[in-house]
Amino acid sequence: MKAHFRLLELSTTKRVELLDITKMVEEVVGDSNIMNGLCLVFAPHATAAIIVNEDEEGLRSDVVKWIEEVFPHNGGWKHNMIDDNASAHLASAFSSSSRIFPVKDGRVFRGTWQSIFFLEMDGPRRRRIMVEVLGE
Amino acid sequence: MKAHFRLLELSTTKRVELLDITKMVEEVVGDSNIMNGLCLVFAPHATAAIIVNEDEEGLRSDVVKWIEEVFPHNGGWKHNMIDDNASAHLASAFSSSSRIFPVKDGRVFRGTWQSIFFLEMDGPRRRRIMVEVLGE
Amino acid sequence: MKAHFRLLELSTTKRVELLDITKMVEEVVGDSNIMNGLCLVFAPHATAAIIVNEDEEGLRSDVVKWIEEVFPHNGGWKHNMIDDNASAHLASAFSSSSRIFPVKDGRVFRGTWQSIFFLEMDGPRRRRIMVEVLGE
Repeated sequence: MKAHFRLLELSTTKRVELLDITKMVEEVVGDSNIMNGLCLVFAPHATAAIIVNEDEEGLRSDVVKWIEEVFPHNGGWKHNMIDDNASAHLASAFSSSSRIFPVKDGRVFRGTWQSIFFLEMDGPRRRRIMVEVLGE
Repeated sequence: MKAHFRLLELSTTKRVELLDITKMVEEVVGDSNIMNGLCLVFAPHATAAIIVNEDEEGLRSDVVKWIEEVFPHNGGWKHNMIDDNASAHLASAFSSSSRIFPVKDGRVFRGTWQSIFFLEMDGPRRRRIMVEVLGE
Repeated sequence: MKAHFRLLELSTTKRVELLDITKMVEEVVGDSNIMNGLCLVFAPHATAAIIVNEDEEGLRSDVVKWIEEVFPHNGGWKHNMIDDNASAHLASAFSSSSRIFPVKDGRVFRGTWQSIFFLEMDGPRRRRIMVEVLGE
């Protein structure tokens, strides 16, 4: 069994933003030389998330709109008495800061319309993503 | 370490629908001969999800009602200018297309009221589910 | 490869409540002597969840408020004809009853503001959490 890690870094440019990281994740899996196992994509952040969906311009703006409706920025949150990002914390907690994929025959097993996104919700910031490939 | 894969296939019959796949998943774990490790249940789809909950008729219809309220089908979504399933994409992105379970002593470790469901949100369709058991 | 399991037990005191279990999880990882792999934190319950976020008093009450708004206790749910906890079931199904973390150099890899919480939504009750560390 082998565990292969790589810490990716990226910069976001807006408060709420989706960045497609599919190619970066697939490169880590390719470099790992692990043929069968799992790939964990993990953001060590409490105001961001990892989600999986189609990379289509309209849908990316729908995601931003949905987040702002369900996790309103000015929702009367108590955490905003000491900071201004309670909505991002709530959305991160309930969206999950990670996603996990099968690795089969050396590749990330995913559907045609499943791109992997870093979801920034308290940007712009410098952010990190840990990609771990476990298997053999 | 061993990685055991099986691709399940199923057909859904409604636009939004829950299918209990617990027995299918447990059969894969039994056939794997893996005693201790993990079981990943992964749907390679961007308009469906895997969720875990009690298999009770009223609750299944509550899940459908909740989805239609929180991810409204006619929500003025931009993605609907090129397709008609933005609500399913959003619900899939935020519900997650996978769930993972401990495998202990050759069995899926889960609670009495935790059944495993494939959640269709853009049916009816033919769908696939990858079940991976990793361990030894 | 090694799989190390420990079943934690705790008691909750309110209907909806967050309990910080970070130290308990990290103790299991330390005791496992596994240096590189994964840590799965899994609640075998259909009316609770595991979430990850900042352990700040205001934010903890924001989480409770958000849950009660998005999963209303009196939402006209059909499951409430046989029980009174449909909202907890729905919130558990869509929040997920588990979270997974990289284990690197013998430690849980997580961000500074990422505490691990057991989220009770149908308390007070006795509850269990399975912590599994997989790796070597």
